[in-house]
Amino acid sequence: MTNQETPAVTIPTEIDTPEILVDRDILERNIDRMASAVRAKGLSLRPHAKTHKIPEIAARQIAAGASGLTVATIGEAEVFAAAGVNDLFIAYPLWVSPQKAARLRRLAETAQIAVGVDSAAGAAMLGTGLGKAAGSVSVLVEVDSGHHRSGVSPEAVVPVAEAAARAGLTVAGVFTFPGHSYAPGMPIEAARQEQQALQQASEGLAAAGFDITRRSGGSTPTAMLTENSVATEVRPGVYVFGDAQQLELGRCAVEDIALTVAATVVSHHETPADGPARFIIDAGSKILGSDRPAWASGFGRLIDQPDARITALSEHHATVEWPERGTAPAIGQQLRVIPNHVCLAINLVDDVAVTSRGELVDRWAVAARGKNK
Amino acid sequence: MTNQETPAVTIPTEIDTPEILVDRDILERNIDRMASAVRAKGLSLRPHAKTHKIPEIAARQIAAGASGLTVATIGEAEVFAAAGVNDLFIAYPLWVSPQKAARLRRLAETAQIAVGVDSAAGAAMLGTGLGKAAGSVSVLVEVDSGHHRSGVSPEAVVPVAEAAARAGLTVAGVFTFPGHSYAPGMPIEAARQEQQALQQASEGLAAAGFDITRRSGGSTPTAMLTENSVATEVRPGVYVFGDAQQLELGRCAVEDIALTVAATVVSHHETPADGPARFIIDAGSKILGSDRPAWASGFGRLIDQPDARITALSEHHATVEWPERGTAPAIGQQLRVIPNHVCLAINLVDDVAVTSRGELVDRWAVAARGKNK
Repeated sequence: MTNQETPAVTIPTEIDTPEILVDRDILERNIDRMASAVRAKGLSLRPHAKTHKIPEIAARQIAAGASGLTVATIGEAEVFAAAGVNDLFIAYPLWVSPQKAARLRRLAETAQIAVGVDSAAGAAMLGTGLGKAAGSVSVLVEVDSGHHRSGVSPEAVVPVAEAAARAGLTVAGVFTFPGHSYAPGMPIEAARQEQQALQQASEGLAAAGFDITRRSGGSTPTAMLTENSVATEVRPGVYVFGDAQQLELGRCAVEDIALTVAATVVSHHETPADGPARFIIDAGSKILGSDRPAWASGFGRLIDQPDARITALSEHHATVEWPERGTAPAIGQQLRVIPNHVCLAINLVDDVAVTSRGELVDRWAVAARGKNK
Repeated sequence: MTNQETPAVTIPTEIDTPEILVDRDILERNIDRMASAVRAKGLSLRPHAKTHKIPEIAARQIAAGASGLTVATIGEAEVFAAAGVNDLFIAYPLWVSPQKAARLRRLAETAQIAVGVDSAAGAAMLGTGLGKAAGSVSVLVEVDSGHHRSGVSPEAVVPVAEAAARAGLTVAGVFTFPGHSYAPGMPIEAARQEQQALQQASEGLAAAGFDITRRSGGSTPTAMLTENSVATEVRPGVYVFGDAQQLELGRCAVEDIALTVAATVVSHHETPADGPARFIIDAGSKILGSDRPAWASGFGRLIDQPDARITALSEHHATVEWPERGTAPAIGQQLRVIPNHVCLAINLVDDVAVTSRGELVDRWAVAARGKNK
């Protein structure tokens, strides 16, 4: 946008700030594009719902052909099962306390449930907790493909799978999260490591006599990079909305950003007339989230001003440095912020304002917000 | 704690993880200690409720002698007014949209309301929005005492106050937030700058004919540092709970930490036998928050293991590096994390588990969670 152009009217007049806006048209385009691309590769798509936590978005993903959803917690699984999703993968090495076991047993009565496992102890606890229901819950062994978070190395999957089988669980496959793909220049190498880890782990399990059918991989950065995939399914999450991290990594374009935070300029700094303008907007870390990887250029981006940067963030204030003083918005003007990490922003609000062509068309509850267990 | 000691049983058996625990005894001690210290200095105490967002805690602060509460948003003010708090200061330079103006007018019918202002434009908008109710709302002009967020310099307060008076508002005083006190070695200098800014600003207003009665300052780091205070009131927030930032700044001790996140070890890394242990717990950025100032030693602290560090954080995983391999907790063990910034952690949960001497004694709703506008 040049200075002469008028910015598009993209904030409906009913919106009071700060508020999360979801552009339904861009959202649906993102959902369809990923569904088509994954289908063209012959893979299953199991989107990670921790990004959006919204049943209306899950329904669109399923309608576009997703085989089910990925979630991070039992609480998220409960929300989406209640909304009618009947195939859920909890991609996390749960330690199944008695409370969690009771909830998992109830879930398994109405939905196809798979759970991550990365230790013999965790597998045994899961089997004990599920009791007679153990056979109806599948497990996927988590493999570390280089992110070094949870998961075992590919050569260490067999003992975990054997413990799961002893506990009465159905070992359905392996999964990995190439989280190190979220760094500049890393997606191609991370995608290669991901495929290699899935291959090695599944060969190991086959050699040990396991008949596995699911090899699950894929983050938003790597989901589209793999030719002749070893994986049978991918689990991208962020692609539905995009965010400033994905934008700065070059994994999405500004026109793919479906979620922004509407904010108002509330204060202006006194700065030298020949320098950049600095002002404060009313969207802080309590609506944007405060993730900031070392390589990020700030705490989020402004969608209509690519050269502006958010240089400081507190709970209800973001400090914006705006390169050209003459075009800086006055106190009272509204603008839209792209959060750095959209999964954190969505988890801070109870609902979102849904827009289409600049009109407010709906409100969706973030039904799984805060479901951390 | 030495390796030989058994850690205190501080997580009630009913607790499933991750979960926020508030130790009621420590909380009440923190509330009483701050109230006594502020009273001894002859100041009013107006605690910032954005830290806790919980009416049961506000009631204890008022009972201990707080003159009212500070809040950051109209939404927080609405929650605490509904809970019976009748004197509220919204310490933020609001841009009062028509929606916000209507809510402020309703609030002013039942509570004493003061609002921050730091621009002539914002003051005019506030006066217009309040209309006939303008006279019943006080404003405090925000002064920048060195944090360089919102607020005007002390010599620039008069035009803002004059705009507020023209808009029909009652100019009751000045306020500042010495946020730069949240850095190593800064509290004493920040407290000095805070006093100087309040002094200069209030002298300027007096010279311009304003009869101001409120000079409001004070964060948790600076609240207790000032002798012969220029301020008439202080607004600390974090002191009720403490957090890892305050601990690392030396502003509280481990035994003052009233809020922790109960977590479970879910995964262990394969690491060399002579090195530190590394493991994963089920508390990530969606319950701890992801604030990490440059000077912090990690993404939070473990309350029973001062030498452990949280070296990486994602949404549902924290990676803990534990110095001595032999004492590392096994998969399935529970431990307690001190969040870096407690104001963000509390805003991620719908309620907290209240404990006393290791027993679960209550649950409190985080009634103002997510009230960003």
